[in-house]
Amino acid sequence: MQESELDEAGRISFRVRYAETDQMGRAYHAWYLVWCEMGRSALLRDCGVSYAQLEKQGVFMPVRRAEVRYERPVRYDEVVDVRTSVLRRSPSRLVFVSEITNERGETAARGEVELAVTDASGKITRLPAEIMAALGAAGGEGEEP
Amino acid sequence: MQESELDEAGRISFRVRYAETDQMGRAYHAWYLVWCEMGRSALLRDCGVSYAQLEKQGVFMPVRRAEVRYERPVRYDEVVDVRTSVLRRSPSRLVFVSEITNERGETAARGEVELAVTDASGKITRLPAEIMAALGAAGGEGEEP
Amino acid sequence: MQESELDEAGRISFRVRYAETDQMGRAYHAWYLVWCEMGRSALLRDCGVSYAQLEKQGVFMPVRRAEVRYERPVRYDEVVDVRTSVLRRSPSRLVFVSEITNERGETAARGEVELAVTDASGKITRLPAEIMAALGAAGGEGEEP
Amino acid sequence: MQESELDEAGRISFRVRYAETDQMGRAYHAWYLVWCEMGRSALLRDCGVSYAQLEKQGVFMPVRRAEVRYERPVRYDEVVDVRTSVLRRSPSRLVFVSEITNERGETAARGEVELAVTDASGKITRLPAEIMAALGAAGGEGEEP
Repeated sequence: MQESELDEAGRISFRVRYAETDQMGRAYHAWYLVWCEMGRSALLRDCGVSYAQLEKQGVFMPVRRAEVRYERPVRYDEVVDVRTSVLRRSPSRLVFVSEITNERGETAARGEVELAVTDASGKITRLPAEIMAALGAAGGEGEEP
Repeated sequence: MQESELDEAGRISFRVRYAETDQMGRAYHAWYLVWCEMGRSALLRDCGVSYAQLEKQGVFMPVRRAEVRYERPVRYDEVVDVRTSVLRRSPSRLVFVSEITNERGETAARGEVELAVTDASGKITRLPAEIMAALGAAGGEGEEP
Repeated sequence: MQESELDEAGRISFRVRYAETDQMGRAYHAWYLVWCEMGRSALLRDCGVSYAQLEKQGVFMPVRRAEVRYERPVRYDEVVDVRTSVLRRSPSRLVFVSEITNERGETAARGEVELAVTDASGKITRLPAEIMAALGAAGGEGEEP
Repeated sequence: MQESELDEAGRISFRVRYAETDQMGRAYHAWYLVWCEMGRSALLRDCGVSYAQLEKQGVFMPVRRAEVRYERPVRYDEVVDVRTSVLRRSPSRLVFVSEITNERGETAARGEVELAVTDASGKITRLPAEIMAALGAAGGEGEEP
């Protein structure tokens, strides 16, 4: 991956769907978790990892903890930007952070999501070494012991 | 099943969630398909059939066609009533109809959903005979040839 | 608008979100209605009409009828293409059709959605003449009497 | 309200919808925020407060922060129980906590959601005194200064 592409790794932008609004006239708060998930999928893809493929190999990444801090509402049809990076990583636990900005580039929200690494039965397992290596490019404090 | 219970087979009621509203101040139209699905699950359950169990046995019922006609909006926190019955049935195809009424008992919408019966790979298969028999109590024009 | 741009009016493509999958391992059927809505928003935008702006002017377009025919499932992370056009139009009623194709260009589903044109109170009204004119470029059988 | 009813204030139970599952075969994590919202609506209602009515009076309660810790997955058709109470309250800020349990009574997740109190324009305002008083019965550390 080129440096310039790396800068954009884990960055997506999309328009807020009408379906995502609520009667307060803003995007409903639960959708932000979906946007964070889209950001994680994109980041993995940009690192050369297909989460769809991982699941086919028997590696699953269920959410253990999710937190969102909301600063500014976003509206229908507004173009939202989500930048996702790895905050912390170990072979059996990953923490991602997503910065969500509105059309004017202002912070709309910040989400932090912790994932476990499990097999199909839900038992904790370890990420394959090549995936850990690929994720190294996505930031984070480095590998936990 | 007692006659009086049969009258209520496939009937559910629930409150419209805030998450289901849109900025027009009403329940967003796509949620009605989810409500129809809840109605089908309830109807099957009332007929002694667990759809969750069916899937474990390798029988799946993907949607082939769905149509909703909307007559009156429903609002956040309103108690909505969904009455579902079988409109047509054959061992490999089922058509369900759901009448959605608002808090005042007025028709809000009517949904018609056609399901195929498939195996895990998506290949058309046939509903087990005991399921067909159980569904007989749920209405419908009778078994198609 | 240039001819070549017109060809692409009302065309969007996006990846299926993990949130949109169900335990059958495919996109859940109700999301297709959301995708059709995204298609309509895009078509209007491509015709120079902002639906967000329309609502600010007091013009609303609630759904009256929606129908989707499902042909092939789509999967998580698959790039889906939605092409939307106007099937029929009158100042107080619009019918849109959306063709949804999968990553291999095969038809996944076809949705048809009829919208009413109302004021904020839900009373039927008429689309402003300039909006009707703009929509003329989006196809359809021509203006109904 | 009777003592025995108070015990059940803010308690709801419902079945996991098929729409809420994902391809991992469990309820998708973002829905838990919707369930917490349903719990808050129910708690307010049980305290004699209609959130729908509050909005009509110009009082809105947008989410400022939401956190969910997931312990056990829940499955399609499983009956989920949500018990919600007020953790902290002041006239312009409320923190609710929701305990989500599965069909066997085990903890599935715990959500904590902080709401601001605003007017229609999004400006911070104060909850009417009678609402604060009504919420007193819903628990919490007591009124913040």
